[in-house]
Amino acid sequence: MLAEKNVIRALMVQTPSLPGNLGRVATTIGQIGGDIGEIETVQVGPTWTMRNITVHCDSEAHLQEILEALTLLEGVIIHAVSDDVLQAHEGGKIHMKSRLDIRSISDLRRVYTPGVAQVCREIEEDPEKARIYTSIGNTVAIVTDGTAILGLGDIGPVAGMPVMEGKAALFDRFVGISAIPILLDTKDPDEIVRTVKNIAPGFGGILLEDIGSPHCFEVEERLKEELNIPVMHDDQHGTAVVTLAAVISACRSAGIELKDASVGQIGLGAAGLAICRMFKAYGVKEVMGADLSDEAKARLTHYGGEPVHSLTELMERCDIVIATTGVPGLIKKEWIRQGQVILSLSNPKPEIEPEDALEAGASFAADGRLVNNLLGFPGIFRGVLNARSTKITEPMLTAAAEAIAACTKLGHLVPHPLNQHVHQVVSEAVETVAHSSE
Amino acid sequence: MLAEKNVIRALMVQTPSLPGNLGRVATTIGQIGGDIGEIETVQVGPTWTMRNITVHCDSEAHLQEILEALTLLEGVIIHAVSDDVLQAHEGGKIHMKSRLDIRSISDLRRVYTPGVAQVCREIEEDPEKARIYTSIGNTVAIVTDGTAILGLGDIGPVAGMPVMEGKAALFDRFVGISAIPILLDTKDPDEIVRTVKNIAPGFGGILLEDIGSPHCFEVEERLKEELNIPVMHDDQHGTAVVTLAAVISACRSAGIELKDASVGQIGLGAAGLAICRMFKAYGVKEVMGADLSDEAKARLTHYGGEPVHSLTELMERCDIVIATTGVPGLIKKEWIRQGQVILSLSNPKPEIEPEDALEAGASFAADGRLVNNLLGFPGIFRGVLNARSTKITEPMLTAAAEAIAACTKLGHLVPHPLNQHVHQVVSEAVETVAHSSE
Repeated sequence: MLAEKNVIRALMVQTPSLPGNLGRVATTIGQIGGDIGEIETVQVGPTWTMRNITVHCDSEAHLQEILEALTLLEGVIIHAVSDDVLQAHEGGKIHMKSRLDIRSISDLRRVYTPGVAQVCREIEEDPEKARIYTSIGNTVAIVTDGTAILGLGDIGPVAGMPVMEGKAALFDRFVGISAIPILLDTKDPDEIVRTVKNIAPGFGGILLEDIGSPHCFEVEERLKEELNIPVMHDDQHGTAVVTLAAVISACRSAGIELKDASVGQIGLGAAGLAICRMFKAYGVKEVMGADLSDEAKARLTHYGGEPVHSLTELMERCDIVIATTGVPGLIKKEWIRQGQVILSLSNPKPEIEPEDALEAGASFAADGRLVNNLLGFPGIFRGVLNARSTKITEPMLTAAAEAIAACTKLGHLVPHPLNQHVHQVVSEAVETVAHSSE
Repeated sequence: MLAEKNVIRALMVQTPSLPGNLGRVATTIGQIGGDIGEIETVQVGPTWTMRNITVHCDSEAHLQEILEALTLLEGVIIHAVSDDVLQAHEGGKIHMKSRLDIRSISDLRRVYTPGVAQVCREIEEDPEKARIYTSIGNTVAIVTDGTAILGLGDIGPVAGMPVMEGKAALFDRFVGISAIPILLDTKDPDEIVRTVKNIAPGFGGILLEDIGSPHCFEVEERLKEELNIPVMHDDQHGTAVVTLAAVISACRSAGIELKDASVGQIGLGAAGLAICRMFKAYGVKEVMGADLSDEAKARLTHYGGEPVHSLTELMERCDIVIATTGVPGLIKKEWIRQGQVILSLSNPKPEIEPEDALEAGASFAADGRLVNNLLGFPGIFRGVLNARSTKITEPMLTAAAEAIAACTKLGHLVPHPLNQHVHQVVSEAVETVAHSSE
């Protein structure tokens, strides 16, 4: 599967200009387990053709194996192997652009002094006008302290910047939000809250990103309480929204009535607890959870869930099982009950491979690579910014999950994340709830 | 003069399609003292023509006068009066854009997960790589607490946002820097320093903007000391650089040797003191200053300048006089000595009108509208970011001033600020000094 390969390289490959040669190359790559992404024809000559072939491999060793096999093909020459991912990141992925052209002194006088003074005075008299005449109302801060970057852990905010820039690029691409990474040089919750509050006037919303557990709970709760703009921790609620959407779709496929089902959450970290809260908010009566930490179990009780004593108890009692533990292979095949829905969401290796779960009798199984947060956060923020909401509420989040599920084809878990329509539908659903609760 | 008009409106004007009608309209506007910016022909019919005419007026009353005069012209109809400045600001002037297209799953895997993880790990292993693979090294924070916005004073950071966005737009337009307004919800210097330090990892430089005196001194000094990226307060050093450049050009025109001249600064606020420091750094032996505040005079002494007792003493002793007091008409015509260079920089009304100063015998006189900071800050930051400097030093600033002066035509005070070449030259001058001092 394309989604499992983590080493991506572009090979500049020369082949004879005769039919069948690209086929030989592609077959060789495929036989060794490499996946082919784009193929771009760079040059076509009378005797040879040059193509840039993107190959996805498991590891550097796997790449070497593919390269060696290709060089053995007659007439095939590899001219260069380049790292597309690194190249794409050169210079960073985002840039603050002027929305206006500035070519004449008249332009300058409009966007800068003296024209700008009039706009400042308008806003001074009526601060609400900042929504109209500045970018604030369309700008979201992506705030991280770098303590829980992807599956990489506490690698610091600067090393996490490529993730933040990626999110900002997606905000721009899918919903036209101007998003600004804020890298925090502190991990102290008090200091994080204080800093974010001090810079909040420039933003219409705050997306907390890759902040570790348990301090993420305090940071989010306090910022929600103390700021009058929407705040959301994506690793909690963004993940929970997309998970709920996936489970709604899975239940539809498996013929299970979600609200009457018992849902079990394995792993009560930031994402796990948020998923439990999301199910409670959606109206699921029985939400159970397992974790090694007593503190996490206490939190679950606080949110209305029921802690269980063991993994096996959870597997026995639940119709739907969701795992976010980061422990590969944690769920044993023999624990799976006939007809269960299993989502093992840990990256890069799930708690149980979906194929194994299906083989053991699950009615539906998937891993975390399909449950992409990208389906949630852009539309959620577009919706609240459109509505000028001061909060992101549970009804908005469940509306977002339902909107994602409504866009999902039967038998699929979630819609294609590059489908612009999904983001539009999520945004509208959130905005509608926001307006109706005013 | 165009530069003195603060009310800018676009008039949609219909005239008969006969030669001479636009002339009648333009003459009428001019006779009442209105200035015409762009004229755009919107529609040409057999009997009438529609044009969008941008008019710069002194005030709303002045605009009304012009409109009334135009409606008296036979065959002339004004269909709409619109506020170009406000319209240009709708939705804000800046937007964080993705630098990469994201159209396919392959694109997504390159810029977001899983590809991004590889880039994060590269930076974790070697933090210097953040300069290559993220936007940090090309990003400047424009930080304000809103206490000294333009000539408008303490109107708060949100009302000041149009100025910050304007600066960000100029950074993008002239030197390709990605600049991010940071609006601070605190005026306390400790808190400002703390907040900026906490968010510093995401930036390659810090431009302090429109922060009031005297707390701007402490904030700038401490941030320079405690951060290892370039920090500059534009209202101090940006203004000082452009002022020094203007004085170098004025001296060249007036045939004065600047380093041997005595320079007098009236008003020792943030800009005034920085101007004094700049002249000392440039090598001017005699720098005097006048201010009502003893604290300001003590600061001047600290920086090597000489406080004088009265304005008249300063006017008597100095060959070059610079005023930044904000007090219109402060300098009396009878104080001007033959051959003096007078720069009365306060906006919107100068300490003495340049025409009056020239009439009284000054060899060169100008007001602040020509001394545009835009000539300084973009090139200065481009230069230090290119050189990966950790500081902005006095030699860099004097090099910037000399570069601006070198681009100025004889008889002019400064170059045209929209001349891309100037920004390039300033950037190179700063970068050269940065490299030579490594």
